[in-house]
Amino acid sequence: MTAPNTGVQTRATSWVESANDGQTHFPIQNLPYGLFSANGQTPRVGVAIGDQVLDLAALDDAGLLPAAAKGAFASASLNRFIALGQPVWQATRARLTALLSGEDAALRDNAALRAQALVPMAGVTLHLPVEIPGYTDFYSSREHATNVGRMFRDPENALLPNWLEIPIGYNGRASSVVVSGTALRRPNGQTKLPNEPRPTFGPCRKLDYELELGFIVGKASALGEPVSTADAPAHMFGMVILNDWSARDIQQWEYVPLGPFNSKSFGTSISPWVVTMEALEPFRRDNPAQSPEPLPYLRQQGRNAYDIALEVALQPAGAAPSTVCRTNFKAMYWTMAQQLAHHTVSGCNVRVGDLMGSGTISGTTPDSCGSLLETTRNGAEPVALAGGAQRGFLEDGDTVTMTGWCQGDGYRVGFGEVSGKILPAA
Amino acid sequence: MTAPNTGVQTRATSWVESANDGQTHFPIQNLPYGLFSANGQTPRVGVAIGDQVLDLAALDDAGLLPAAAKGAFASASLNRFIALGQPVWQATRARLTALLSGEDAALRDNAALRAQALVPMAGVTLHLPVEIPGYTDFYSSREHATNVGRMFRDPENALLPNWLEIPIGYNGRASSVVVSGTALRRPNGQTKLPNEPRPTFGPCRKLDYELELGFIVGKASALGEPVSTADAPAHMFGMVILNDWSARDIQQWEYVPLGPFNSKSFGTSISPWVVTMEALEPFRRDNPAQSPEPLPYLRQQGRNAYDIALEVALQPAGAAPSTVCRTNFKAMYWTMAQQLAHHTVSGCNVRVGDLMGSGTISGTTPDSCGSLLETTRNGAEPVALAGGAQRGFLEDGDTVTMTGWCQGDGYRVGFGEVSGKILPAA
Repeated sequence: MTAPNTGVQTRATSWVESANDGQTHFPIQNLPYGLFSANGQTPRVGVAIGDQVLDLAALDDAGLLPAAAKGAFASASLNRFIALGQPVWQATRARLTALLSGEDAALRDNAALRAQALVPMAGVTLHLPVEIPGYTDFYSSREHATNVGRMFRDPENALLPNWLEIPIGYNGRASSVVVSGTALRRPNGQTKLPNEPRPTFGPCRKLDYELELGFIVGKASALGEPVSTADAPAHMFGMVILNDWSARDIQQWEYVPLGPFNSKSFGTSISPWVVTMEALEPFRRDNPAQSPEPLPYLRQQGRNAYDIALEVALQPAGAAPSTVCRTNFKAMYWTMAQQLAHHTVSGCNVRVGDLMGSGTISGTTPDSCGSLLETTRNGAEPVALAGGAQRGFLEDGDTVTMTGWCQGDGYRVGFGEVSGKILPAA
Repeated sequence: MTAPNTGVQTRATSWVESANDGQTHFPIQNLPYGLFSANGQTPRVGVAIGDQVLDLAALDDAGLLPAAAKGAFASASLNRFIALGQPVWQATRARLTALLSGEDAALRDNAALRAQALVPMAGVTLHLPVEIPGYTDFYSSREHATNVGRMFRDPENALLPNWLEIPIGYNGRASSVVVSGTALRRPNGQTKLPNEPRPTFGPCRKLDYELELGFIVGKASALGEPVSTADAPAHMFGMVILNDWSARDIQQWEYVPLGPFNSKSFGTSISPWVVTMEALEPFRRDNPAQSPEPLPYLRQQGRNAYDIALEVALQPAGAAPSTVCRTNFKAMYWTMAQQLAHHTVSGCNVRVGDLMGSGTISGTTPDSCGSLLETTRNGAEPVALAGGAQRGFLEDGDTVTMTGWCQGDGYRVGFGEVSGKILPAA
């Protein structure tokens, strides 16, 4: 077997048979990190392999992981491991690949350790994987920015003048980032109808999702020291799917002049498995064309786009799910490297565990848009669901599930899913 | 001596003589908490008293502090102590008051302990007192919002329609909050002149300060559970002075539609001493009149305004400082209780240590405005400084120092100062 951690799309396999069916999101090529608990134990770091979770604290106790990572996995977040740095990420991935391929038989041939360290995923609780010191949300899909600008501002000049120059972003609320499976209450807030003199207070009437990916910062930067686009990839640990739940009616009334606040801060959901940049390496693609050419600090040499297929399903209570969006991350106008270079060019520092959302990922057609706002044109053209239901915006009891994967040759490097149900307002 | 911790403005005194001169910011009525290091020791929690810092870790070791706070002071931030909750804050303040008044002679009469626990402030290093999980900045001075709106938007309709209904705020960048004394580099960034087709990149040409106060959240709230205006004061631990450094030219180009980002994220300075809400209790004042009456969730019963005098001094390199602003916190339109109620009404949770900035504190005259933007009308009317210099915006080498205090009967409950020097751009 050729080394499966070199980025070549060979069809490596694992002795964990469920990892080899070509459909699982978690083949040996992936090895995403998460935080799980099972059997009454405290949360610890695990890796998804097929339909199993590999308990890295148990492997570490057994002396099978790199010494440089010793003690990093019996932890309530990935941060301690991430902070050890890229050489340790690489060494750990190489060890896990050897152990799970059978190239190193120490786990495969040890029944007692296998029984302890391989936990069926169906029986575990997955927790928020990262302690997030800061959450920034960008706005990097040209299609999304255009669609929103057309509806909320000037249809003739939908894209604001700064959009093609700046990877626009804003600071989000880190406290309310939750892991997939967390139900969220419909937010209450102020909304104002155009024909009324004053706003009213009550449950949001235009509750929406936003399909995003987010990257997790793996290497801090110091205050006053910008990160270049060339150095930016070395500051990224991995990626998650992100649902930036949005209260459109609250947003429209509150957002001038300082940006979205209560319309976003009631909750942001992320997928529990952090897919590493190493696993995503084979799926790098050429950067999208940018015109005008960005200012020098935003120019990039490397290929910083990624081919990641994405889907959104909407499931009313008691009904079947319907796929309401199919799109791809590779078309995003601004890359993650550009986002990080812009974020730090002022001197702003980043920290290990910072979450950077991509902004809503949208295509040009209604069924490739990453929000109901766009798909239904602000509710005017409801989307039809299986069983005859339709939605302009989300209703109580609806569950939104987002998924994404990179298609390799006979395997998928997947993100699993991020799912959340809407509860009635308090 | 009557109990000095009841909020009555009696002239209580301490056997630490420097606390009794009527001018110090740190009399026995104050007792602000900070994080300090001295003599090569690790940072620990201290309290300012006159020109001394009282080492609470040492007092705790000596068994002089409440058992409920045991171990909370030998810590790299105030968070552990704050998280213990209001009854422990109250008990600790009562103990410190007894020890420093001499009502309890255990410290006063123990020369060895005094020598260990009282450290001259002149010799200590003060650190960022709180680990800040989230930083939110409000915009609650009507005068400031009007002044800014007049310059950047429509002079005839300077106040945006939502301003009188919403305590407008946005998420700031917590990673770059620094303690007083930290020098900051002038940020680089994109700016665009009206007559040019594209932006240029380079050092900010309109660097400014913003005079604010911030409160530190002392009690967390759960996701989905709003905090009412009535309960809000119990969620506040104390306050600091805050300088929200701002790059006006970067801000003007970047802020539409998602708000300020790089124009603010290069640094935010706070004062090192956290003045507790208990110490501020005697300085509560009636709330400002609000018209229209706010929506029900923003109405308040208690007195939530505070009489805090504030000053800003600007000191060019090698020159004397000039006071360029004198104002007061009591005129702020939206109160901190309203800010917190609004922040959480969507269901957004807050955490211990969250920092909530007031927004720039401005009066109606140029010399009562909390930013150069306002004082100099966007640079058009430079302010004259001692020695003949003048400033439209900040120049390299300038030091900005903000201070504030509550004037009691013969004593001041003060904030000390927050100071920062501008270094040339990288």
